[in-house]
Amino acid sequence: MSDPGEMALGLERERPGAPVSLPGAGLQGYTVPRTPLGQASLVPPPPWHYVGDFLVVDFHADPEVAASLLPEGLEPHPDAGRCAAVYADWQSCSEHGDELVDPSRSHYREFYIVVNALLDGEAVTTCPFIWVDQDFAMARGWIQGFPKKLGEVWTTRTFGLECRAAPGLRTGSRFGGTCSARGRAISRAKVTLDRVGDGSVHTAPPIVNVRHFPRLAAGRHDEPQIHELVRSRSRDRSVSEIWEGEAELELFDAPGEEHTLLAPVSVERGYRFTFAYTVDDLETVKELG
Amino acid sequence: MSDPGEMALGLERERPGAPVSLPGAGLQGYTVPRTPLGQASLVPPPPWHYVGDFLVVDFHADPEVAASLLPEGLEPHPDAGRCAAVYADWQSCSEHGDELVDPSRSHYREFYIVVNALLDGEAVTTCPFIWVDQDFAMARGWIQGFPKKLGEVWTTRTFGLECRAAPGLRTGSRFGGTCSARGRAISRAKVTLDRVGDGSVHTAPPIVNVRHFPRLAAGRHDEPQIHELVRSRSRDRSVSEIWEGEAELELFDAPGEEHTLLAPVSVERGYRFTFAYTVDDLETVKELG
Amino acid sequence: MSDPGEMALGLERERPGAPVSLPGAGLQGYTVPRTPLGQASLVPPPPWHYVGDFLVVDFHADPEVAASLLPEGLEPHPDAGRCAAVYADWQSCSEHGDELVDPSRSHYREFYIVVNALLDGEAVTTCPFIWVDQDFAMARGWIQGFPKKLGEVWTTRTFGLECRAAPGLRTGSRFGGTCSARGRAISRAKVTLDRVGDGSVHTAPPIVNVRHFPRLAAGRHDEPQIHELVRSRSRDRSVSEIWEGEAELELFDAPGEEHTLLAPVSVERGYRFTFAYTVDDLETVKELG
Amino acid sequence: MSDPGEMALGLERERPGAPVSLPGAGLQGYTVPRTPLGQASLVPPPPWHYVGDFLVVDFHADPEVAASLLPEGLEPHPDAGRCAAVYADWQSCSEHGDELVDPSRSHYREFYIVVNALLDGEAVTTCPFIWVDQDFAMARGWIQGFPKKLGEVWTTRTFGLECRAAPGLRTGSRFGGTCSARGRAISRAKVTLDRVGDGSVHTAPPIVNVRHFPRLAAGRHDEPQIHELVRSRSRDRSVSEIWEGEAELELFDAPGEEHTLLAPVSVERGYRFTFAYTVDDLETVKELG
Repeated sequence: MSDPGEMALGLERERPGAPVSLPGAGLQGYTVPRTPLGQASLVPPPPWHYVGDFLVVDFHADPEVAASLLPEGLEPHPDAGRCAAVYADWQSCSEHGDELVDPSRSHYREFYIVVNALLDGEAVTTCPFIWVDQDFAMARGWIQGFPKKLGEVWTTRTFGLECRAAPGLRTGSRFGGTCSARGRAISRAKVTLDRVGDGSVHTAPPIVNVRHFPRLAAGRHDEPQIHELVRSRSRDRSVSEIWEGEAELELFDAPGEEHTLLAPVSVERGYRFTFAYTVDDLETVKELG
Repeated sequence: MSDPGEMALGLERERPGAPVSLPGAGLQGYTVPRTPLGQASLVPPPPWHYVGDFLVVDFHADPEVAASLLPEGLEPHPDAGRCAAVYADWQSCSEHGDELVDPSRSHYREFYIVVNALLDGEAVTTCPFIWVDQDFAMARGWIQGFPKKLGEVWTTRTFGLECRAAPGLRTGSRFGGTCSARGRAISRAKVTLDRVGDGSVHTAPPIVNVRHFPRLAAGRHDEPQIHELVRSRSRDRSVSEIWEGEAELELFDAPGEEHTLLAPVSVERGYRFTFAYTVDDLETVKELG
Repeated sequence: MSDPGEMALGLERERPGAPVSLPGAGLQGYTVPRTPLGQASLVPPPPWHYVGDFLVVDFHADPEVAASLLPEGLEPHPDAGRCAAVYADWQSCSEHGDELVDPSRSHYREFYIVVNALLDGEAVTTCPFIWVDQDFAMARGWIQGFPKKLGEVWTTRTFGLECRAAPGLRTGSRFGGTCSARGRAISRAKVTLDRVGDGSVHTAPPIVNVRHFPRLAAGRHDEPQIHELVRSRSRDRSVSEIWEGEAELELFDAPGEEHTLLAPVSVERGYRFTFAYTVDDLETVKELG
Repeated sequence: MSDPGEMALGLERERPGAPVSLPGAGLQGYTVPRTPLGQASLVPPPPWHYVGDFLVVDFHADPEVAASLLPEGLEPHPDAGRCAAVYADWQSCSEHGDELVDPSRSHYREFYIVVNALLDGEAVTTCPFIWVDQDFAMARGWIQGFPKKLGEVWTTRTFGLECRAAPGLRTGSRFGGTCSARGRAISRAKVTLDRVGDGSVHTAPPIVNVRHFPRLAAGRHDEPQIHELVRSRSRDRSVSEIWEGEAELELFDAPGEEHTLLAPVSVERGYRFTFAYTVDDLETVKELG
């Protein structure tokens, strides 16, 4: 152990270090909490590097209801009701990558639904519902316009050995995903692989969301302080071979949730792949009411 | 069971109901996710009614370090280094109160530290560090300027029976509190009651925090979209009899945390009481940076 | 802080201390793990002192199905299908009581169902299903014959203040309870208080369970190593005033669960009270097959 | 969706089905709870198929202390103080494999320590401390003689893409593991890969543990009902290529834990690999005390 001090819990300091700032002016941090060293910020500063295993199911919801979930600024997609359900098992880190060896700060899992739409005539997706199992990922989602709540997400994993306890990436292998929140089932999917293909059609377009932060001042509760249509930007995207197959999808009612508005009226193909990218930008499309 | 339908999981709808809105214009919700019925919002609209059991320890940290944690706009308190550590075991609800019978949406526990300061010469407190165990309470804190992260918080409870398994509110009774986050200990306190008194001195002033929401647009990561000094407003405050006693307090180092900057240099009295109030307003004191 | 050393995380030692034992012969612990000091045991040695807030619903299930859940040695109760659902919000400790100031080792919540039966003609209850949220309570349950699995349990709390955020113990107050396991809803109950009464009829008899521990030796998987009917013994029992009222109860299907076999066919009264007792004994009624 | 009914939450029934048994005689289940269909058992019947990603650190503890942790029947290993720390990220299933598509019932993570010893002159290992994050794995461990408690375990993952957010299996890649229990840090390790090798020396021997189940009958608390030395048996073992490298390991003190008795006095190599096997047998070596 070349540097035992570095390992001592609590003595570790993130790179890069920074001098203690003067009172009143020197607090640092991309998010709260903001502190003299800037190391307590719930979300570290961009860029954020991501990689994840994905289980995706393309489906259609009731067209009218799907349209009712579109934010101002988006129009219904011509293939009315086009949606996808996504389970993602992520690992992420910031520029220095130190979170990777303290994995409680790099792993997280999430489930979300996207609805297809048009933005000024261009095909896009938007995310009305998403649940994630870590606080840093929840806050990082809000910053990008994803309406994240906490939930528990599970997906079948592959392992690098032929064995009874894990499916391989091959015809006939079955993968499952589940999401719950507050102890209530939210969704469940199964995909049985049958071939390598071109990937999910319903998640292909770029994603456009609403960044939103409310006011609490009396009399202004309905005038959010931030309310803007934003378009995700990313770079260094890569994807593995994409397996696909027959899919099943169920959404479950739960108190305080409305995602079953998008209950599948038809379920198309399912997909299993690994995806990586980097995020350090966001485009504001327009300010909303 | 007079209305079995109301109990069916997923058929329950929060009061008041609302018609499905027109596409593109009718999404409702005080926070994200915003939906046709407005029932999926992570945080319901104000007012928010709260009640909680509190364990508080007044202490002093290093004066220079405590001053370094003050946000722009606040000056050090003349009793330099004055702080308090607070464990709160809360139950809360919105106006209709329905969360009270679905208690996974009303219970939460949190631990926080306040530093005493001056705002234009007036004694105030400010909260640099806080951990909470529920997503709705984390988001509700961000809206009020509390820099909340997720954590686990435990405090000794009283019960309405004389017995071996719970302390009574009387001389000699011991109460403990602990907080952890990401599986690392954050703090620990013990209070041994000796008399009824007037309550915590260090938490008495009004609380002033920083509401903060960052930007992700490239080149603007250091220009937060919201960055303002805010002063909490509340009404309908009530408090029980306040017991006090000798206190112990420890803060523990943890990766990605800086709260041990406020390690106690002296520990004063501890307090145990119940407190209730209602919040539906917030005053913006000044825009920062 | 009179003894700072006692507070240092990891230096604390439970009372009573014990000398390090000789290799090979001196491991101590009421349960595993067994160690030189005996302080790592998942469950500390009896006696165990308990206090808890209870929400109970008396109900009837299908008589034939209820009978099918009785272990060998019990006969159906003459009031066929008599059951109760119980939510308990516990605090417990061992003889020295030190867990009370480290409350992550004393709090836990559980939900269980009892079925009424006869043992040699005497009215008894037995517990076929129970979920609890802490490991020490799960193991302590197995030792007493309770078939505990992990779950999440929530119940409405009272607080010592008149306020909007907590029901008082009075006519019209509503209390709720929920249980989930692995992210699936297990049960939900509501009770609306209307008067002080005599308490639950269906939980009144003594409880008789099956202590069970399987074998893993090849060929003997169906010959459990422990399989015996046991009768709970307790002492120093006390109970608060018991409020009662109209009740609702739902049980929800979930994968890998069978508790909905006991779905209510009628729901009787609900009860809210506080109960304390001490356990340090168990009677073996008979060895089973 | 060929069989939509199979997907409906709560209607799913595990294979193989079984008829409802007669009252009093027909309860089924390898563990509790035992039920008419046998599908609620916390642990399904053997065989159990496992696969997991492993991070292992060979180290030496104080020889005398390591010896003091050996159960009756084992003698100290000639390489005194030889131990290993193991982080395992598992997926497991029973014979039908249905848990694999409901992954909350197949994933779990655990951390454990083994001490090397001699059994009648043969080199073996034994596990004095282990933490796991799922109830079914905790109970399955007790059945095999592993002294499991609940904890949270995290390890760095690999993904099937070259990217910034995951280490590859190559020289210079860093892997980390952490364990906590009750919100207190238990251990932390880092391994920096430098070559493919032959694997961990300290975990190579077969494992011998103590199956233990206490009594609660008054006066017999120190006469466990099961207390026997058992030797694990497994089949269909396979292992991936094994990478190794320089390792760091820390054990952290925590209330109610004694694992820091095995604090490293020297840390040897670390290992990263994938391992699969099947368990459906256990050998009782001798009855103890």
